[in-house]
Amino acid sequence: MSKGKVVIIGGGAAGIPIASNIRSKDKDREICIISKDTYCSYSPCAIPFVLEGVIKSFDDMVMHTPEYYKEERNIDIRLNTVVTSIDTDNKKVHIGSEEVEYGDLAIATGGICFTPPIEGRSLKGVYRIMHISDGMAVKEAMDAGAKEVVVIGAGAIGMESTVAFAEAGLKTTLVEALPCLLPLILDSDMSEIVTKKLVDMGVNVITGKSATSINGTDKVESVTVGDKNIPADFVIMCVGVRPNSKLAVEAGIEVGARGGIMTDTTLHVKKGRGYLQDVYSAGDCTEVVCGITHRPTGSPLGTTAVRQSKIVARNICGEKVTFPPVLSPNICCVDDLHCGQVGVTTHAARMGGIEPVIGKSRAFTRARYYPGGKVIDIKLLFGGEKLIGAQVVSKEGVKERIDSLSFAIKLGMTLDELIEAETCYAPPASMVVDPVTIAAENAKKNMA
Amino acid sequence: MSKGKVVIIGGGAAGIPIASNIRSKDKDREICIISKDTYCSYSPCAIPFVLEGVIKSFDDMVMHTPEYYKEERNIDIRLNTVVTSIDTDNKKVHIGSEEVEYGDLAIATGGICFTPPIEGRSLKGVYRIMHISDGMAVKEAMDAGAKEVVVIGAGAIGMESTVAFAEAGLKTTLVEALPCLLPLILDSDMSEIVTKKLVDMGVNVITGKSATSINGTDKVESVTVGDKNIPADFVIMCVGVRPNSKLAVEAGIEVGARGGIMTDTTLHVKKGRGYLQDVYSAGDCTEVVCGITHRPTGSPLGTTAVRQSKIVARNICGEKVTFPPVLSPNICCVDDLHCGQVGVTTHAARMGGIEPVIGKSRAFTRARYYPGGKVIDIKLLFGGEKLIGAQVVSKEGVKERIDSLSFAIKLGMTLDELIEAETCYAPPASMVVDPVTIAAENAKKNMA
Repeated sequence: MSKGKVVIIGGGAAGIPIASNIRSKDKDREICIISKDTYCSYSPCAIPFVLEGVIKSFDDMVMHTPEYYKEERNIDIRLNTVVTSIDTDNKKVHIGSEEVEYGDLAIATGGICFTPPIEGRSLKGVYRIMHISDGMAVKEAMDAGAKEVVVIGAGAIGMESTVAFAEAGLKTTLVEALPCLLPLILDSDMSEIVTKKLVDMGVNVITGKSATSINGTDKVESVTVGDKNIPADFVIMCVGVRPNSKLAVEAGIEVGARGGIMTDTTLHVKKGRGYLQDVYSAGDCTEVVCGITHRPTGSPLGTTAVRQSKIVARNICGEKVTFPPVLSPNICCVDDLHCGQVGVTTHAARMGGIEPVIGKSRAFTRARYYPGGKVIDIKLLFGGEKLIGAQVVSKEGVKERIDSLSFAIKLGMTLDELIEAETCYAPPASMVVDPVTIAAENAKKNMA
Repeated sequence: MSKGKVVIIGGGAAGIPIASNIRSKDKDREICIISKDTYCSYSPCAIPFVLEGVIKSFDDMVMHTPEYYKEERNIDIRLNTVVTSIDTDNKKVHIGSEEVEYGDLAIATGGICFTPPIEGRSLKGVYRIMHISDGMAVKEAMDAGAKEVVVIGAGAIGMESTVAFAEAGLKTTLVEALPCLLPLILDSDMSEIVTKKLVDMGVNVITGKSATSINGTDKVESVTVGDKNIPADFVIMCVGVRPNSKLAVEAGIEVGARGGIMTDTTLHVKKGRGYLQDVYSAGDCTEVVCGITHRPTGSPLGTTAVRQSKIVARNICGEKVTFPPVLSPNICCVDDLHCGQVGVTTHAARMGGIEPVIGKSRAFTRARYYPGGKVIDIKLLFGGEKLIGAQVVSKEGVKERIDSLSFAIKLGMTLDELIEAETCYAPPASMVVDPVTIAAENAKKNMA
């Protein structure tokens, strides 16, 4: 009994693993990925590191080609191909006048860079960083003798790109409208550490002010921020990622207040009063539920996309598995300074009606007397007795500590349990009492 | 209402924090630490790294002097002082003919290096590594023109000392009677990675054979292992740590089958039919309960000592808090290769009646295309659905992953929960799917 072709719109961190996961369970089912991108199977998060020169070329980022997927996994990938509409009644997608029938459809259209409506945003020399082609254009601008750049937006891509420009010797200005850098993942006290890092690298950091216009005749010449005019040979706009849900909306599929495609727990999309049993959504285009506030939110992370893709693939293959609320652990690498976060920030907690109790520590990643240890800053947030958020900034040991705190939040760890939890020690690897434990003990004092 | 002096026998990782923790809660109580050691307030785990030259001197290891404790914390510390007996009926300890009365007593006498009864073990040139004085003697032997050394016992200190000797250019032989290196923390498949490391460093590694005699006239000349005679200018014996409970035993305090001082959950010691409400035990001398098998065991780790010391201090100060069963996360640093473990190994699981389901992964610590990433090997053990043990070997990201798995075991995480758990990603810090997740997915296959 054939269930028809699986059509996946999008070849990114959700689309590709949906196809691969289906194939690993069903060796015969016809699978077709349609992507408007020129490449597939890459992580856009790597683009700033190519700009920085740490990763040698954009080709290195690409894990596999369409030919690989065809030959090794019998998956069809059509690149440079735009799906123009979805017809859920007749189970077809349209590529212009061409019709492609599906048995199951997965919408994995990803995100789009939000562009605030400021004057001059369409000038030549204004770039976004979302696809490899964007990265190549920026690299070309860097190599064409640019001397000055303005980056608008201090999220992960903005921060990491700023580092790339500063290290390339460009006079770099970073503009963030909110009061601190990495405002969605760091509280202002933790953010200060990162600000200092960029300032020390020679970056002109401007926070709490918006870029009000981009100026130039046919090409960017400067950016106006407050009463200042900052010269720029090119501009990077990375103000935020929004769900790319236009195609879904046009097909009558419901989206939430933030524009993300609404789904049930099994990731079927909503249309009218019900959920379509043969249409799924995964990745940046999808609305998710916050594991702390239980409100709809976004989670534009490759990790979330990959986890959703497994759920979609299993359900397409006949299982009935659910995608749980998210904690969205994430990490941004600002040169050698890693900034990680999981759960809610203080602002997000308050928006969810929770006044968090805070615990902080500043300690070391190795025994104090062991050479090479790095300063590590930790901030923990508790809602009542439960851990609800964490921020960690250091030059090492950030990613895994965030993961450990992600496990802790997921499993409902209390403050007392965290204080009591066992951690390991050797002088080259840690202090006897882990900085996380020290931060938890600090929270205990603040809770009393 | 005075409760009398707190006397603490031992100035190591249990004794010192007991004193400090009491002082932070009670600024007046008289506290006296009595230690036979020449130094206090140091981590013996650091000794191999001084031998290796990474830590410049033994002085660097010592956090504080007795003078510091007296002046800053009003804690008396008597070094080079041997408690000869404990009289629990009259609440006194004896230092030869001197009597010291106590209100509360904490036994924190630590461990002793087990020395198997092999011929020649008392020859000059046979060292143990437990105290700074031991480390100094070994350093002297190294500096006195030694060319060849035999290390007997491949636990953490044996492994780390072996690295120190090999890096100093000594012809180094490591002898382990059990079938693999680090046998208490690594299964043989994981241990092979470490064996390769030492062999690549030029170490002569002998496993599955015992040293049967140490040979020489007044001074070590060689060690006999099987039918071979291995020349040695000096020998390190680190066959294992046993609880130093002799003083307690002589005072009528009960010890378990492994020689560890038995306590109730509040760390009061047992004498006769009851637990003495004014005598506590903490650190390597103390018997603990394994959090997986629920059997009595040892946990000769600085981290365990510190955690117990907090419980003892709080109970001495009038609280009633308990010390839970242990998972004993630990890490051994073999040159740049970190070997971490938590919970039970396969052998320990089987000894506890559990046949574990295994999940393994070999992956990278960063995105495959990001330079500088290290190979990481992970082995997870499940008992039924629950995670019960983990082993991780890599050049980075070991300590924190072991901690995360320690949290996971403590909170009763199941295999499905671990597969579903969220981890963070950035190309310089990790793969999109964490190696822990990959190992868990492997276990899922093995469980089916």
